[in-house]
Amino acid sequence: MRLPTLPVLDPAFRESVARHVDDLTKPLGALGRLESLGAQLAWIAGTPRPQDPEAFILTFGGDHGIARHQVSAYPQEVTVQMMANIAGGGAAISALCRANRIHHRVIDAGVASPCPFPGVAQRNVLRGTRDPLEGPAMTRAEAEACIQAGLDEVALLPPNPFALLGVGEMGIANSSVAALLVCAFTGMDPAGAVGPGTGIQGSALGRKLEVIRQVLTKHRPDPADPLGVLAAVGGAEFGAMAGAMIGAAARGWAVIVDGYIAGAAALVAMALAPGLEAFLVWSHRSAEPGARLVLEHLGKEPVLDLDLRLGEGTGAALAVPILRSACAVLREMATFGSAGVSRA
Amino acid sequence: MRLPTLPVLDPAFRESVARHVDDLTKPLGALGRLESLGAQLAWIAGTPRPQDPEAFILTFGGDHGIARHQVSAYPQEVTVQMMANIAGGGAAISALCRANRIHHRVIDAGVASPCPFPGVAQRNVLRGTRDPLEGPAMTRAEAEACIQAGLDEVALLPPNPFALLGVGEMGIANSSVAALLVCAFTGMDPAGAVGPGTGIQGSALGRKLEVIRQVLTKHRPDPADPLGVLAAVGGAEFGAMAGAMIGAAARGWAVIVDGYIAGAAALVAMALAPGLEAFLVWSHRSAEPGARLVLEHLGKEPVLDLDLRLGEGTGAALAVPILRSACAVLREMATFGSAGVSRA
Repeated sequence: MRLPTLPVLDPAFRESVARHVDDLTKPLGALGRLESLGAQLAWIAGTPRPQDPEAFILTFGGDHGIARHQVSAYPQEVTVQMMANIAGGGAAISALCRANRIHHRVIDAGVASPCPFPGVAQRNVLRGTRDPLEGPAMTRAEAEACIQAGLDEVALLPPNPFALLGVGEMGIANSSVAALLVCAFTGMDPAGAVGPGTGIQGSALGRKLEVIRQVLTKHRPDPADPLGVLAAVGGAEFGAMAGAMIGAAARGWAVIVDGYIAGAAALVAMALAPGLEAFLVWSHRSAEPGARLVLEHLGKEPVLDLDLRLGEGTGAALAVPILRSACAVLREMATFGSAGVSRA
Repeated sequence: MRLPTLPVLDPAFRESVARHVDDLTKPLGALGRLESLGAQLAWIAGTPRPQDPEAFILTFGGDHGIARHQVSAYPQEVTVQMMANIAGGGAAISALCRANRIHHRVIDAGVASPCPFPGVAQRNVLRGTRDPLEGPAMTRAEAEACIQAGLDEVALLPPNPFALLGVGEMGIANSSVAALLVCAFTGMDPAGAVGPGTGIQGSALGRKLEVIRQVLTKHRPDPADPLGVLAAVGGAEFGAMAGAMIGAAARGWAVIVDGYIAGAAALVAMALAPGLEAFLVWSHRSAEPGARLVLEHLGKEPVLDLDLRLGEGTGAALAVPILRSACAVLREMATFGSAGVSRA
């Protein structure tokens, strides 16, 4: 498949952004992570004083054959029910997008039941993936179509030269699929990657771990073949999220990674598109245990640490005002010279 | 002095808020700290579905006699220069209030030089405190007047039944005063409470610690007499912040504590007004080492952890959209019943 090429960000320009930040009227480094976030966004935007960015969140839905192994606390029907709830404006992501001036779109990438609700974008690639204990969750062609669905959704967004794109998801059992992808791309043991998801515990959690181990043993996914990994373990919303991330970065936008599930999709996207990492902002440290390990593996410090474990893009939405604030500081603060403030 | 009485919050109502949160369409507890913040705000607001709160930040300026002992990286003149910069809209807090729909006001509570800048509220109690190594930083009457300045500023704000009030400050050397207050009210050793502030290090940091120890030895401040502590070690903006916190809580508003300096002012306010604690939201874990210890001492988990150490109210401003988001979730999310979503 053909993926769009990403802009090459100039390290020299990043240096000049850093000098601009140090010239603003505050003690050196006193805005901490807000400065480094602002510098990253300015680097991506190509200006030391980035405009106030429009923000978009795409929530992709998908279902998973692995759900039949009772790896989730909720029945699979909840995916389509929540697609309706999201489209109807009653979900957490709906409230958070309204509260934070974020354009939101919800997309059926692979939900098992039709989602004929007003406002749901229809890009269903398959009505739920197949059971990865029986064979591959998707064909390579289906996996490609999922990535293309994400690229196509981003192509519909307005052609802003700089903006923020957050990606999130809805899909019962997708923390199991995330664990599979995380193990495949990081080499992590499943014991670290598997967690309670929507809230399973005790023997159910032990069964989830056993299913993950069996799938990995069956497919032995090869991280050098990211499309093959995606096809083997799934799922549709992961492919679509990866495509959306790549599509946004290709436009020169910053990409906000939500939590554990979106983080696993980011691993797929990074494997597909070298250079993507510079465009990614990690929004929060999910309460799902594997999420912490992924951030450590990549050496990333997230924006927020609020014990979220909901998905949908909720962590990305909460990071948006912080990122806009970082842009505002770089754009609007006076310098020591312009304000006549004495230096240390 | 007479302080306003605080509303008494009903524990039974807090229970009913918790039940409302658990009925919203998300796995139990999946919004983590956003749920507990939302529940606190709903409790204060007196409704399980709190309105979108207006937000106000007051930035109080003050100077400190202790500055003559070279405890800061910056000269004292920076306080008045930054008051002009804040009033002119070029400071970090100015940019962050604009970016986050926050009404901002800057107040001269005790700056050493006049601040005749448009937009600066004139409530100067004294032109900088006196050197606490020579005697008390303020008289008890001056300390009372500072608290009254904060109360009076809050009295000028619109009479919303529920809102957010953040407090911040500007004052060269005030991390030294914060350390004195923290030691007085928590019993912490100065070695834990003293940090780099605007950026001093090495032998200068050692000298700062020595000055703090000498002031504490001289005054032996008694935490049972909070007004006496405030008079002994200062400073004006701390008293005004404490007054503003008490005034806002008396109205039934939530109070957002900024960083280390505002946290020290909160210790004064909590000592003056039992029951205040329920109204306080701790906005961020400052990079100033003592700030972490204050949060641990009080058993508080802050909203953000971004290595900020600027003051002015910047951490409070950044917490505002998160708190508004918490209100939005409680106010706008559907319930399992209303959305027809299956439970676990």
